[in-house]
Amino acid sequence: MTIEFVNPPRRILMGPGPSEIHPRVLAAMAAPTVGHLDPYFLQIMDEVQSMLRQVFRTRNEMTLAVSGTGSAGMEACVVNLIERGDRMVVGVNGVFGGRMTDTAERAGAEVTRIERPFGEVFSVDDVAEAVDRVQPKVVGLVHAETSTGALQPLEEISRVVHDAGALLLVDCVTSLGGLPVEIDKWQVDAAYSGTQKCLSCPPGLAPVTFSANAVEAMDARTSKVQSWYLDMSMVRQYWGENRAYHHTAPINMNYGLHEALRLALDEGLETRFARHQRNHGALKAGLAALGIRYSVAEGMQLPMLNSVLIPDGVNDGEVRSTLLNRFGIEIGGGLGPMKGKTWRIGLMGEASREPNVLLFLAALEACLAAQGGAVVPGAGVAAANAAYAADK
Amino acid sequence: MTIEFVNPPRRILMGPGPSEIHPRVLAAMAAPTVGHLDPYFLQIMDEVQSMLRQVFRTRNEMTLAVSGTGSAGMEACVVNLIERGDRMVVGVNGVFGGRMTDTAERAGAEVTRIERPFGEVFSVDDVAEAVDRVQPKVVGLVHAETSTGALQPLEEISRVVHDAGALLLVDCVTSLGGLPVEIDKWQVDAAYSGTQKCLSCPPGLAPVTFSANAVEAMDARTSKVQSWYLDMSMVRQYWGENRAYHHTAPINMNYGLHEALRLALDEGLETRFARHQRNHGALKAGLAALGIRYSVAEGMQLPMLNSVLIPDGVNDGEVRSTLLNRFGIEIGGGLGPMKGKTWRIGLMGEASREPNVLLFLAALEACLAAQGGAVVPGAGVAAANAAYAADK
Repeated sequence: MTIEFVNPPRRILMGPGPSEIHPRVLAAMAAPTVGHLDPYFLQIMDEVQSMLRQVFRTRNEMTLAVSGTGSAGMEACVVNLIERGDRMVVGVNGVFGGRMTDTAERAGAEVTRIERPFGEVFSVDDVAEAVDRVQPKVVGLVHAETSTGALQPLEEISRVVHDAGALLLVDCVTSLGGLPVEIDKWQVDAAYSGTQKCLSCPPGLAPVTFSANAVEAMDARTSKVQSWYLDMSMVRQYWGENRAYHHTAPINMNYGLHEALRLALDEGLETRFARHQRNHGALKAGLAALGIRYSVAEGMQLPMLNSVLIPDGVNDGEVRSTLLNRFGIEIGGGLGPMKGKTWRIGLMGEASREPNVLLFLAALEACLAAQGGAVVPGAGVAAANAAYAADK
Repeated sequence: MTIEFVNPPRRILMGPGPSEIHPRVLAAMAAPTVGHLDPYFLQIMDEVQSMLRQVFRTRNEMTLAVSGTGSAGMEACVVNLIERGDRMVVGVNGVFGGRMTDTAERAGAEVTRIERPFGEVFSVDDVAEAVDRVQPKVVGLVHAETSTGALQPLEEISRVVHDAGALLLVDCVTSLGGLPVEIDKWQVDAAYSGTQKCLSCPPGLAPVTFSANAVEAMDARTSKVQSWYLDMSMVRQYWGENRAYHHTAPINMNYGLHEALRLALDEGLETRFARHQRNHGALKAGLAALGIRYSVAEGMQLPMLNSVLIPDGVNDGEVRSTLLNRFGIEIGGGLGPMKGKTWRIGLMGEASREPNVLLFLAALEACLAAQGGAVVPGAGVAAANAAYAADK
């Protein structure tokens, strides 16, 4: 086997992440590596922290990038907040709530799962009932369920959680940078995200933030965090003023995140959120014209992750493989119980662009027609164009 | 604060890692991101595995890159091999043996530490005595102690460990790609490394390999691995034929590692090891001529990490800061109890080059002279040049 220099095919990344990466971010990834204690890298870390605080809309001092992908961020939050025997309530309405449950149980938490069917979200009452009953230390919820495309409102739930003296842990992997994530306003105590969704940076880091109350709970631990690698009591000494060596930070990944954050803040968060909504609206109009329905009710749909029902009689694998191989477009299949039932169409970060929406609708029409679907030629693109025109 | 595009200063990375990165590796880091289930990325993963097997000199199927830095590799090995209450013997003769102890205790192991002073290594008898006494499940040793610059011989110890029915876990973070690491010949059961040392890739991934016996022990577990992120029973389903989604792999980091491995194998491992020895020899000759002694006895010195005693009366911080700010050269200070006592001069991977050796000796001479040291002008460079000439 001859192994060649990396030479990826041209792709338009419209799956559940990674999303498209801006050329400036790729250029930053290739900047010369410096040492992890080099004054220049310490400056990069400070700037990454400062920009993450803006994106998370928080003043939390302990806001940094964990040296692993989003799931490492989930684990970092869980293992630092939980000691063996602590009670935790986790909302499971998709794969990632399930993952949080698993992670918490491995950390020794006594987990109470509250459940909603995939695609639905939790009401304030759902959470209030569980919190009253369990009196947990931590309540974990997923803001934007990547597996179902559903958006969980958090502000009122946060009040219920805090009234019961619990901490609120939120999965913001798919939401951060694509719709409002208000850590301070909503009083979220701990949150984690990934770089490869609406921040449009390659995967490899997990932004996290912890409130003063969360830090206080961590400081009050009587046992060591079970993970050495993710132990925030040490990691914060490196990101903080001490600069105490913990592990060698992924230098070039932090360069990439630095540039991705600059791009997000240069655009402006509100403008960025509006762009995600606008392209979501046009995609939705186009899909409706092709007879394709969302798997999530109106009002709970994520703008960056469009989970739609595969029409009866349409071959899932064939459509996705044609999209990939003929048009260079990646979309995601369903995850867990949604496998074979849904497509997940990402419009995340740099991928949330009008040309992507139009090209995808045109390509999907071709795929459906090839399978004998009764599509009105051009209907998807026409509806999207009309939506854009109406949105001017 | 205006935040600018990343613009690192020019550095020559001669510390304990990260090491210098070949431009081709940086170029690979900037290749367009594709999806983590894209057929092209699956091919990259296969090729990374194949090349890692060559570098580790193993046929172990479970050979892959963990999505974190070297310390995540350490934790991955420990938490997958250890269940709560398992006995483990760890050799502590430097910071990284100490870290392995800490990691194992957090995983619930009953750890027996065997100790040698920093800079020394373990004899076969040291290990035999502990193994007889403790009857552990796992014995953990550090092959190349980055904190002390000492090389631990492993082949005979491996026999003792296996005769007692234990598994041998080895830290190869600093050795892999710079001196022989013979996983199969030495019958090492689990090993982890980092990308940022002698493989000369930016930090961010941890190559690991597990023997059939290690996999058997992992399959025989009665409890879940405490880390979800590092659970090899799931990670292997993604790297193996199933391609089951676990977490989103750091795509561009794997591109970088792919190219770094191509470069290492193109050079040839034996040639690469000889290059590390040759530059180490010349550096040592030059340092001797400047009156600088190693902190590790002859015969146990690592070629890629030269730990030397700071001469009396020389200001550690001033020398390192002058090297960095005036000459652009990064070297490492001492770690743990060696802080302020040693310098750690890395000649790792791409940094192990004749020009680096000569420039460093010339710059160090200037630093020592500026502090009033009694150095013979040009002596270091002359001795290194003579060593290179004799080595032709």
